[in-house]
Amino acid sequence: MAHKPPYSVGVIGYGWAASAHIAAINATTRGRVTAVCSSRPLDAAELSAKHGGPIKTYGRVEDLLADPAIDVVDITGLPSLHRDQAVAAAKAKKHIILEKPMANSPEEVADIVQAAAANGVKGCVCFELRFSNQLQVTRAMLDEGLLGKLHYGEVDYFHGIGPWYGQFRWNTGTKDGGSALLTAGCHALDALLMLMGHDVESVNSLSTKSASPIFAPYEYDTSSVTILHFKNGAIGKTAAIVDCLQPYYFHTHLVGSEGSLLDDKFHSMKLKADKGHWSKLSMKMLDSGDVSDHPYQAQFQAFFDALDKGADMPLTSFPEAKKTFDVIFAADKSAAARGVSVKMS
Amino acid sequence: MAHKPPYSVGVIGYGWAASAHIAAINATTRGRVTAVCSSRPLDAAELSAKHGGPIKTYGRVEDLLADPAIDVVDITGLPSLHRDQAVAAAKAKKHIILEKPMANSPEEVADIVQAAAANGVKGCVCFELRFSNQLQVTRAMLDEGLLGKLHYGEVDYFHGIGPWYGQFRWNTGTKDGGSALLTAGCHALDALLMLMGHDVESVNSLSTKSASPIFAPYEYDTSSVTILHFKNGAIGKTAAIVDCLQPYYFHTHLVGSEGSLLDDKFHSMKLKADKGHWSKLSMKMLDSGDVSDHPYQAQFQAFFDALDKGADMPLTSFPEAKKTFDVIFAADKSAAARGVSVKMS
Amino acid sequence: MAHKPPYSVGVIGYGWAASAHIAAINATTRGRVTAVCSSRPLDAAELSAKHGGPIKTYGRVEDLLADPAIDVVDITGLPSLHRDQAVAAAKAKKHIILEKPMANSPEEVADIVQAAAANGVKGCVCFELRFSNQLQVTRAMLDEGLLGKLHYGEVDYFHGIGPWYGQFRWNTGTKDGGSALLTAGCHALDALLMLMGHDVESVNSLSTKSASPIFAPYEYDTSSVTILHFKNGAIGKTAAIVDCLQPYYFHTHLVGSEGSLLDDKFHSMKLKADKGHWSKLSMKMLDSGDVSDHPYQAQFQAFFDALDKGADMPLTSFPEAKKTFDVIFAADKSAAARGVSVKMS
Amino acid sequence: MAHKPPYSVGVIGYGWAASAHIAAINATTRGRVTAVCSSRPLDAAELSAKHGGPIKTYGRVEDLLADPAIDVVDITGLPSLHRDQAVAAAKAKKHIILEKPMANSPEEVADIVQAAAANGVKGCVCFELRFSNQLQVTRAMLDEGLLGKLHYGEVDYFHGIGPWYGQFRWNTGTKDGGSALLTAGCHALDALLMLMGHDVESVNSLSTKSASPIFAPYEYDTSSVTILHFKNGAIGKTAAIVDCLQPYYFHTHLVGSEGSLLDDKFHSMKLKADKGHWSKLSMKMLDSGDVSDHPYQAQFQAFFDALDKGADMPLTSFPEAKKTFDVIFAADKSAAARGVSVKMS
Repeated sequence: MAHKPPYSVGVIGYGWAASAHIAAINATTRGRVTAVCSSRPLDAAELSAKHGGPIKTYGRVEDLLADPAIDVVDITGLPSLHRDQAVAAAKAKKHIILEKPMANSPEEVADIVQAAAANGVKGCVCFELRFSNQLQVTRAMLDEGLLGKLHYGEVDYFHGIGPWYGQFRWNTGTKDGGSALLTAGCHALDALLMLMGHDVESVNSLSTKSASPIFAPYEYDTSSVTILHFKNGAIGKTAAIVDCLQPYYFHTHLVGSEGSLLDDKFHSMKLKADKGHWSKLSMKMLDSGDVSDHPYQAQFQAFFDALDKGADMPLTSFPEAKKTFDVIFAADKSAAARGVSVKMS
Repeated sequence: MAHKPPYSVGVIGYGWAASAHIAAINATTRGRVTAVCSSRPLDAAELSAKHGGPIKTYGRVEDLLADPAIDVVDITGLPSLHRDQAVAAAKAKKHIILEKPMANSPEEVADIVQAAAANGVKGCVCFELRFSNQLQVTRAMLDEGLLGKLHYGEVDYFHGIGPWYGQFRWNTGTKDGGSALLTAGCHALDALLMLMGHDVESVNSLSTKSASPIFAPYEYDTSSVTILHFKNGAIGKTAAIVDCLQPYYFHTHLVGSEGSLLDDKFHSMKLKADKGHWSKLSMKMLDSGDVSDHPYQAQFQAFFDALDKGADMPLTSFPEAKKTFDVIFAADKSAAARGVSVKMS
Repeated sequence: MAHKPPYSVGVIGYGWAASAHIAAINATTRGRVTAVCSSRPLDAAELSAKHGGPIKTYGRVEDLLADPAIDVVDITGLPSLHRDQAVAAAKAKKHIILEKPMANSPEEVADIVQAAAANGVKGCVCFELRFSNQLQVTRAMLDEGLLGKLHYGEVDYFHGIGPWYGQFRWNTGTKDGGSALLTAGCHALDALLMLMGHDVESVNSLSTKSASPIFAPYEYDTSSVTILHFKNGAIGKTAAIVDCLQPYYFHTHLVGSEGSLLDDKFHSMKLKADKGHWSKLSMKMLDSGDVSDHPYQAQFQAFFDALDKGADMPLTSFPEAKKTFDVIFAADKSAAARGVSVKMS
Repeated sequence: MAHKPPYSVGVIGYGWAASAHIAAINATTRGRVTAVCSSRPLDAAELSAKHGGPIKTYGRVEDLLADPAIDVVDITGLPSLHRDQAVAAAKAKKHIILEKPMANSPEEVADIVQAAAANGVKGCVCFELRFSNQLQVTRAMLDEGLLGKLHYGEVDYFHGIGPWYGQFRWNTGTKDGGSALLTAGCHALDALLMLMGHDVESVNSLSTKSASPIFAPYEYDTSSVTILHFKNGAIGKTAAIVDCLQPYYFHTHLVGSEGSLLDDKFHSMKLKADKGHWSKLSMKMLDSGDVSDHPYQAQFQAFFDALDKGADMPLTSFPEAKKTFDVIFAADKSAAARGVSVKMS
């Protein structure tokens, strides 16, 4: 396979996420960004110089999709446009990288999954945290059996998304933001499901918002807490708090029949260590700003490797990611009805 | 008031809690334990020597209650006996200290509150953590306005209660244990309500138990997670996990319009500190085993001081504590129905 | 078995080791020290009061051995007397606890093992570190496969035994001290063999002594370093340094195909943690003086439990311990010949 | 002397070591790299720009040696070429900087030493750790007498050299790698000899290799442990472990008649500190990645300063470095014969 030319990637949108994607794609062994499409006028020469390779620019998505040189489309723009862009890309027989959220309604997500399947293209949703060192190590602790069978787990996202972030311009509206879970908390809920399994029986969720004027522009509840009843009897919880004023905290607490893990600390009965004190794992914490961890790059490398083999994207394919979004939509439905139980079908 | 003789306290039960109570009562300026009642035969001389003062022993509660020298009865025995003992004490016109849980059903709790009111005696429930340094400091952070208006809060209890504790002998049964919240998690839920207020609109709760054989003797679910919708729009969450295998962790995370508090860390916009890093409060952490913190003693001192003034016990009177137990009973009702919303009346 | 009376233990010798043994034996559920034999006159009433139970005193070993009430003899006296005392105890049909070293020559050790077997009594050598939390956790790391297959290991004993210890009175002589390994380093070599296996092909050893006048009374080399070639191809090393002037350091470094362990730190590829930084285990370090760890008590409990079942002592039976002493004698033979290779038979 | 022009240095080889050398040489007050020789085509203008000064490029060593402007030749290429290149340089009357290992056989090393002496040129072997802050501080502790007379010492090298390092391409073969000691462990053995002296009587060594497939490409044993008997009666040990999976650890433990040093910790009876706890030295640890320590630069400065005075290189001259390599060759000979004693002549 190594003799094949690299995959040409066309990026839709040119904001913060796009910049991070371009660097990460170009750092893989198999992908190169060769085109960018934005409604804002872009200078092809400037982009080429900045990203270290020839990049064409397009002003309209249909033009980019019509470019036969493009193998993969990377959709990084407004969530409210995701469905139409992804479906069009699938019809143009392009493989698809899709920033989270997949889309802001279950119908749109279903359309995307269906279109990719119908057109035989592969998809990769940017739940890149699944490829982070922290979640890989946490998953390995489970795989090695050091925590036993989990019966309770929490993964939470505490991160204030205020005017100091560029996305604040558009994610405050319901149309593109959606909910605390959709706009950012999905990473935490997805991590919880990665660690405890996707077989959810029912959820209950409550939501609210901060009284701070900083977050007043948000049209929707920016704090939510969701509890999950898994089919195997286990229970879980995710808080998605995007209107807090504190350091970023990606909180993980797993409780099993052989021990517990709290962030980078753990106790395992299997190791006969002192239960009164935590042992500590060396891992690159998501909330530490450790720049030596590259989840985007690892995820994109895995996508290109899968394309080489004609295989589905591991961990974050469209059907896999849809499972998480189905839970999110159920949680948001519960929160809208003040905690009513919503069963997963 | 200082010229009055100290209050004579008769203790019902003589287990771990009783020993802690006796030392704490005798350490106050206004209380002295003068009698102990236990179904096991006790040696009065030995008890007197051990606790540094003359102590009478009784084998039957009615005999202790008939002792006119007793001012206050301290009920520390099996929860299933609390209602009858407390009602009898009230009828005997004794003031009452009552270990948690008040009782294991809403009817029993209501009977206790009613009996005390009808007989004009004062009550104090052992939610002694309200008098701990950690919760006092946390409460002060709120009172000073440093976190603004809270809209989200979590207080959790992670503490494995296994055969290594004496209470395991009796708290594994539903009769005296009740639920994860009743047997121990009530401290966390009570702390959450102390910090966020008692005006709860509705709750949802899920429960499960560990697969570890260590906890197999429990007849009820030993892990639960509850989310709360407050009448003022705020939301909260309490996990009560008594079947974990890890260091004791009393977890607090409060999110408000001016900042957040996470255990002994905080950020407040009012102090203009660096939002990217936590500030740190010096407090005596409940889960640290700091022996210089004496919440029992502080609570009993407050009770005796209130009796001196003919006033109700602050913070942990029977009616105040009942509010917490009402929420616990609602949560357990929700958990029994897999998360169904239970409204508070 | 629980209805059986506890094992009556008669202790030979009454120095530091004896005191530690008595407390540990009495802390088990199945052993009680009922007699002590010492060449120094002892007051039975004083001993009984001190150790909380009736203790008879003997001046001659043969009198203690003739006492039919004694089930187990605990030999804690001078190493040069171990062989004769252990053989006599075996002939008297007493089970035997034997402080390390078993004896100071291979012939004496062989005599002890043979006498116990011939008389059908069980033996337990005080390699109590095998029951310490640190070595149990380290062993569990191996059993869980977190270090893979070991190919290199070091366990070392750095502990200055000077006039500040009571044993200095007698362990400075070759007769009772023997060598750096025999007098104390045997714990480290035994731990290395516990972790890497007893199948040793050959050893090389060098020895020397400090120039400090503090250690001048020693008649033998008080520092030695031994390298071991295991039959499975792995290699190991033990330094036994009893003439150092530094804090006690029990050093462990294991290197395997999946990671390494250095004292209470480790890296395991299986956990995908950051190889550039150590993870850390909560364990009770042997050199920390942690008084909550009770290896003597755990070892004696295991011995009494084995006696209840008529089984051999696990981990530290006479035949098991002999394997370690055979390696020690080989190492000392090598050191005497300046490092010449000594093959194990 | 300062009025003399700087020494012109021609570098043979252009890999990782060469880059580090060039920066370090140019950072001295007396050396400038003016030529580079590589079998790969190099662009002189690019090199000149990169290293901040005019650099000529050569494709053949004989051409570089024929350049009369070159004062010093710095040999950084494959170890199997060291002997021929160094002998040719000596004949061309160039002074010589030589990366470790000097060469991979005693005959080659002897040839190099002899050629330099015969042609009156000076040599400097890159045992640059001798000029590191850590070893300078450790040496100073000895020189100040704070540890007294050493009788036991260990210096070890634990550093996994896997495919993540460029040298893995060539150092896995016996021809250029040689042994665990030759390829990297020589730094630890050299440090031990720097601290304990070069007068070695005999050595014993054992070697093995990891079962991990990561290190399978190695043609030789990648773990070895060597014990040394010094002529003054002291003993020492060096482990060279290049197939471990753990953080880099350069381990030092010295034991003397007045105290001990363990990495950056020490105890000295002369300072009357508490023997139960380590004191701590502030030093730049070799294994910490402290970029403020510049052993290469310090070493090259010392070489140029010696050349200015017509003196031999201190600490790392050819004859001095040969002493270390003689011990290494003896150790590898012992390991090949499973630990047999090898006497130094």
